[in-house]
Amino acid sequence: MATIKDVARLAGVSVATVSRVINDAPKASQASRNAVHNAMAELRYHPNANARALAHQHAETLGLVVADVSDPFFGAMVKAVDSTARTTGNFLLISNGYHDAEMERQAIEQLLRHCCSALVVHAKMLPDAELSAFMRHVPGMVLINRILPGFESRCVALDDRHGGWLATRHMIQEGHRSIAFLCSDHPISDADDRFQGYSAALHDQGIALDSRLIARAAPDETGGEAAMRELLSRGVPFSAVVCYNDSMAAGALAVLSDNGIEVPQTVSLIGFDDVLIARYLRPRLTTIRYQVIAMSTQAAELAIALAQGQALTAVTNTFTPTLVRRHSVQSLTQIR
Amino acid sequence: MATIKDVARLAGVSVATVSRVINDAPKASQASRNAVHNAMAELRYHPNANARALAHQHAETLGLVVADVSDPFFGAMVKAVDSTARTTGNFLLISNGYHDAEMERQAIEQLLRHCCSALVVHAKMLPDAELSAFMRHVPGMVLINRILPGFESRCVALDDRHGGWLATRHMIQEGHRSIAFLCSDHPISDADDRFQGYSAALHDQGIALDSRLIARAAPDETGGEAAMRELLSRGVPFSAVVCYNDSMAAGALAVLSDNGIEVPQTVSLIGFDDVLIARYLRPRLTTIRYQVIAMSTQAAELAIALAQGQALTAVTNTFTPTLVRRHSVQSLTQIR
Repeated sequence: MATIKDVARLAGVSVATVSRVINDAPKASQASRNAVHNAMAELRYHPNANARALAHQHAETLGLVVADVSDPFFGAMVKAVDSTARTTGNFLLISNGYHDAEMERQAIEQLLRHCCSALVVHAKMLPDAELSAFMRHVPGMVLINRILPGFESRCVALDDRHGGWLATRHMIQEGHRSIAFLCSDHPISDADDRFQGYSAALHDQGIALDSRLIARAAPDETGGEAAMRELLSRGVPFSAVVCYNDSMAAGALAVLSDNGIEVPQTVSLIGFDDVLIARYLRPRLTTIRYQVIAMSTQAAELAIALAQGQALTAVTNTFTPTLVRRHSVQSLTQIR
Repeated sequence: MATIKDVARLAGVSVATVSRVINDAPKASQASRNAVHNAMAELRYHPNANARALAHQHAETLGLVVADVSDPFFGAMVKAVDSTARTTGNFLLISNGYHDAEMERQAIEQLLRHCCSALVVHAKMLPDAELSAFMRHVPGMVLINRILPGFESRCVALDDRHGGWLATRHMIQEGHRSIAFLCSDHPISDADDRFQGYSAALHDQGIALDSRLIARAAPDETGGEAAMRELLSRGVPFSAVVCYNDSMAAGALAVLSDNGIEVPQTVSLIGFDDVLIARYLRPRLTTIRYQVIAMSTQAAELAIALAQGQALTAVTNTFTPTLVRRHSVQSLTQIR
C-alpha cells in the first residue's frame, strides 16, 4: 500500500506539501495541489481520514439536523448555518430527521460518529429524556425550534403561540369575525402552539371557536390545497383564513382562485414563516415573519463556541415573530 | 476514561447490547436503548467513531455535493438521493459547493475524509483534469448534471441544449417571432447550453437573434425581476419570453404583472426545471421538465453499487427534457 512518502516522491514535492494539500492548508499552490492529486490517484493513495481524525481530534465539523432540506424553511436554515460554519473556518455536514423519532436519532448519532463536535439540531419528535441524554453527552450541541427543560440556555426557538395570536388578531382588527384556520397535521409543538395562539386571539375578542372552520393537512402546498378544498366543501361562510405556514397559504390561494374566490376582495389570507414564495404569490402574501436566518446563525455560533469549550454567552433564546403586511388581507369594511 | 464495559455495567445490559445500540442494530429494545444512552451520558462515554470505522471499513455513508440546498432544484435532488440512501440502508451526508471551484473541491475532499465511499457530485466549476483525478481515485463517485470525458458511464446529465430548443420552438409554433431570453449569469454549461438551444431554434426558423432581447442575471427570483426590468427598459417589443429556469420566470412574472402586462394575454412566458413553484404561480407556468428525481435516484443507485464493487450496469446517461404545458403561453393569433 502506498504511503504519504510515495505520494510526495511521485508528485515531486515534500511530505509537508502533501500533508498541506490533504489538509486543505491555505499555503499549497495550485500546481502542488494538482501534482499531489494526480499522484494520489495514480497510487490509489487515500489519506486515512479516520486515523488522521484520531490523531488530531479538533473541532472541524459542524453537524446540522433539519427535518427536510427540500422544505424552503429548512433550506434557509441550512444556508444560514453553512454561512456561519464557513465564516468560522468550519465545515458543515447536514442530515434529515423527517419529523420521525427514529430518523432524528439516527441523524444525530451518525453526525456524532462523523466527528461533529458542534451540532445544531432540529428534532421535534425525540422525547425530552433522550434529547437530554444527548445534550449532556455533547457539550457543543444546540437545539433550534425547541426549548428543552434544563437546557434552555442552549436552545433557540420562536414564540409560535404569539405568532398564531398575531396573525389572528390582525384579521380581527381588520373587522373579520369568521376566521378559518388551516392547520398542520404534523404532531409537533409548532402546530399546537400556532393553533393555540389562534384560539386565544378569538377568545380575547369573545369570538367562539367553530370547529367547522378548522382543517388539517400536511404543511405544504398540496396540504394547503386539500385543507382549503375541505373547508370550502363544508359550506360554512368565512371571510379570512389563517394558515399554518406560507406553503399551505400558497396551496389555499390556488384553490380559492380556481374556484373564483378572489383574494383579498372576497377572502383575506395570512401565512406564517415569510419564506421566499410569500413574495412571489399574487397577491403578495401577508405573513408572520420567522427570523430563521438570525436564529440559525445564533444557534450555529453558539454550538461552535461551546464545542471549543468557550463559556456560554447570553443569547436570545426565544425570538418574537412579527407581522409582515403585504396584499392578501383586506379590511372587512372594504370588502364588496 | 469509561469503557464499553462500564456502560454495560451501569445500564444493566450486556456489552453486546451496548454495541447493538451504538451501531443502530435493529434488535436493541427501546428500554435497552434508553438505559444505554443514559449510562453513556452519565459516564460521558462516547463511542469512538473513528476507531470503529477503522475496524469496520464498510460503505455506510453516501456523500452528496450540490451547489446550494436552499435552491428548490437542489432540494428535490437531495430528497431523491436521501430516499435512495435510506432504502438501501445507507446514510447521507450533504455539502454545498456553491458553483465555486474551491468550495466544490473542499466539499468533495471533506466528504471523502468522512468515509463516504459512495459519492454523488454536482460540481460545475472544477476543471475536468481535477475532477478526473477524483474519479480515478474514488470508484464509487458519480457525477450529476455533467458529462466528464472518459467517465461517461459514471455521469448522469440532462440535454440542456434540447430543453432550450424545445422551449423556444414551442413559442415559435404558437406564432411568436419576437422571443426574449432571460439567461443565467452563472458561468456554467447549463446556461450556455440552454442559450444555444434558444439560438438554434430561432436559426432553424430563419429568425434573427436580437441581442437586445437577451438579459442576464442570477438564476433566482430576484435575478428574474432584474432581467425583466432591464428587458422592459430597452423598449424593444416582444411577445414571448423563454427563461433559464422557473425561479427567474417567477421573478419575471412579478415584474410583468406589476407593470400591467398580462401573462399570457400580452406576453407568453416559459420556464425550465418544473420545480414546485411552477404549479403555484398564476397563471400556472408552462415549463420544461428536468427529471431531477429519476436522475438523482439513478445517480445514487449507481454510486452505491460502484462503491460496493458491483459491475457497472447500463444506465441512461443523458436524459431528455420534455415540455409541460400549463397556462402561461398563448398562441399569438389569440393575443388581443
